[in-house]
Amino acid sequence: MSDYRRITIASAGAHAGEPVEIAGWLYNLRKSGKIIFPLLRDGSGILQGVCVKSQVPEQVFEDLKNLTQESSVIVRGKCRAEQRAPGGFEMDVESVQIVQRVPEDTPYPITPKDHGTEFLFDHRHLHLRSRRQHAVLKIRHEIIKAIRDYFDSNGFTLVDCPIFTPAACEGTTTLFEVNYFDEEKVYLTQSGQLYNEATAMAFGKTYCFGPTFRAEKSKTRRHLTEFWMVEPEMAYADLEDVKRVAEELIVFMTGRVLENRQTELATLERDVSKLEAIKGPFPRISYDDAVKILQGKGSEIQWGGDFGGADETLLSEEFDRPVMVDRYPSEVKAFYFQPDPNRPEVALGVDVIASEGYGEIIGGGQRIHDYDLLLRRIQEHHLPPEAFNWYLDLRRFGSVPHGGFGMGVERAVAWMCGLEHIRETIAFPRMLYRTRP
Amino acid sequence: MSDYRRITIASAGAHAGEPVEIAGWLYNLRKSGKIIFPLLRDGSGILQGVCVKSQVPEQVFEDLKNLTQESSVIVRGKCRAEQRAPGGFEMDVESVQIVQRVPEDTPYPITPKDHGTEFLFDHRHLHLRSRRQHAVLKIRHEIIKAIRDYFDSNGFTLVDCPIFTPAACEGTTTLFEVNYFDEEKVYLTQSGQLYNEATAMAFGKTYCFGPTFRAEKSKTRRHLTEFWMVEPEMAYADLEDVKRVAEELIVFMTGRVLENRQTELATLERDVSKLEAIKGPFPRISYDDAVKILQGKGSEIQWGGDFGGADETLLSEEFDRPVMVDRYPSEVKAFYFQPDPNRPEVALGVDVIASEGYGEIIGGGQRIHDYDLLLRRIQEHHLPPEAFNWYLDLRRFGSVPHGGFGMGVERAVAWMCGLEHIRETIAFPRMLYRTRP
Repeated sequence: MSDYRRITIASAGAHAGEPVEIAGWLYNLRKSGKIIFPLLRDGSGILQGVCVKSQVPEQVFEDLKNLTQESSVIVRGKCRAEQRAPGGFEMDVESVQIVQRVPEDTPYPITPKDHGTEFLFDHRHLHLRSRRQHAVLKIRHEIIKAIRDYFDSNGFTLVDCPIFTPAACEGTTTLFEVNYFDEEKVYLTQSGQLYNEATAMAFGKTYCFGPTFRAEKSKTRRHLTEFWMVEPEMAYADLEDVKRVAEELIVFMTGRVLENRQTELATLERDVSKLEAIKGPFPRISYDDAVKILQGKGSEIQWGGDFGGADETLLSEEFDRPVMVDRYPSEVKAFYFQPDPNRPEVALGVDVIASEGYGEIIGGGQRIHDYDLLLRRIQEHHLPPEAFNWYLDLRRFGSVPHGGFGMGVERAVAWMCGLEHIRETIAFPRMLYRTRP
Repeated sequence: MSDYRRITIASAGAHAGEPVEIAGWLYNLRKSGKIIFPLLRDGSGILQGVCVKSQVPEQVFEDLKNLTQESSVIVRGKCRAEQRAPGGFEMDVESVQIVQRVPEDTPYPITPKDHGTEFLFDHRHLHLRSRRQHAVLKIRHEIIKAIRDYFDSNGFTLVDCPIFTPAACEGTTTLFEVNYFDEEKVYLTQSGQLYNEATAMAFGKTYCFGPTFRAEKSKTRRHLTEFWMVEPEMAYADLEDVKRVAEELIVFMTGRVLENRQTELATLERDVSKLEAIKGPFPRISYDDAVKILQGKGSEIQWGGDFGGADETLLSEEFDRPVMVDRYPSEVKAFYFQPDPNRPEVALGVDVIASEGYGEIIGGGQRIHDYDLLLRRIQEHHLPPEAFNWYLDLRRFGSVPHGGFGMGVERAVAWMCGLEHIRETIAFPRMLYRTRP
């Protein structure tokens, strides 16, 4: 068997006409009398095989004909171009080696028929093998790589922030508590931002990129209890710098997905024209204007209120690309936002609302750099100043204007893929009622 | 002031002779009569300025002369080559703009004098600004980027595993427990491996890369409670594939550090000849041989026992590069290791022991792919089979030989940097008695 070179399906085109073998799984099998068409997957792609009864030993034909879905199998033969086949190539099968045959009496549980969502996520360890889920996670990988490449090639240093944190960044009601050696309580991070501000003063431009946690009791299509977030932070930067980097990042990320993941976008039947429209410059409007637009479209939002998901969707209808909304009322923003010097009642913060109703994809802004003002805000928000003493140190020792933002990876994946529900954007989603498998 | 172009210190060489400004912090100040030498840092590097009293307005000279450590300042002037200066360039200062001056009566707490470890880690948010810590974290970034680049360019798909897990991978005594909505207990992941085995069957070659947690009550220089781990897993792979990828990864990572982080290695006074020796092929020995070597060197290890840190150090003395030790007694390995078909009492596992006494840097091997054998092992280890039902599914539906490994990032950083203690390898270390800042 050593005459057959082991290749991946993704590279089949480069080996047309050569004797090759593919080690994978039987994805599907179509029979047409004396010809069978096994659909093989190996993780890199899907390849259609053709096995003609008269051209192979009888045992080979019988083995393949009776093979069960998701059995592991090594298939040998030669590939050739075939426009009608998925991927553009087909294999003329010469022999098969069954590695493990799934028995008929305990068949693979996920069949081509429709299954309920609960069933599929109970079998998530197998569900990931299906074409659609595979495509989503390949795009997720592309997005994560694009994000890292963007920051790495623009002078940012990766400095990951701790998961175990003594205090909350935003409120305490949505914190997960961890029993730390029976001696003290620690919490799972909700954001690395406060730490990022420390590292930005050491490295100039930094980003952290890891899992974050919110114990939100909401069961919406936009919420996970465990999700990944990238958060850049820049010293000597203002709101305009934050907007520029946010826009560049989204444009770069979208470009990479369009460039490298056409196959997966096609599998998901994504309308790529919507992604192709995501180009700079993004429209930039103020919160004031956004409120007027929303009121004009029938929303009951009043100046001073925060946008809900429905408002974000309404707003996104006005634009073919993401829209940047800045200068929110300080009241609805976290304590650390720098007030606008010309209008102290609004904060130098910006939200980027994704197109097509995918909601807030980025939130960030400029942070308070003045010691006295920050201390006053901590007190006004009834936060314990001693817990923020180290954070206040950053304003005692070489304080500078600085800012940054956070982008949730799962929302970005849902948007790029055009998904209804965020649970498909991560391999093993964790939600209010889901912690398995 | 708009005549001065804002540059980073790292790019100063490309702008020699031009009017430029650097936005940073005063790292140190040396005075010599009518000349002062401010040492500036901006996160990208350190630059020495030269300010001659007779050549600048009196106020500029006075401002700079009285500037306090870690005050934030924008310095303007022209750079020129100067071999004796750190980085090879010096700036002739023409003007300064103080952004925030650290007051004399509350000076920056970390001075050039020696501080105790506790003090430094209590001030970790500032400690990261010092040259040595800065160098370590730049090398950490380089290592993480190298790891990701290696896997991304070798056909691996990034599929991150959940942090919240219902069951333990290795023992239950070192698990951190999380209160999940008062309804059930979940645990923080210790390894993504079991999940990786599911994703490898979907993607062929995968890796996860995230934080992992161990509630170990040990206070050694090698233990953190929160640390980052990369774990690749490959379908249709055996022990030899695992060894090959482990070796390639270490060689690639070391090469990148040597190529891109010479400045930081010099700051750390790292003996780079030790890193240059890390080339393939690594010596490969069996556990049996390792035991004999250790006994010959005076260790009390007996066949059947696991190596302790002292044994690993002894063993590493025999080689100038990492050594791969394979086929450990099954007894000391986790339940999922594939036994050697020729000698069932040993497992097809491999540990890579770093050079210079940095201990086990990689552990991995081939997993059991046979359903009956895996079920028997789960029972022998008194693990609840129902919790592993999904994991057993991977042997019911298209099981194939497969394997992978885990590499701890912090140990890799300690090794590359030549550090005594692992606490310096991460921005905000979490240990038995350390959860702040």
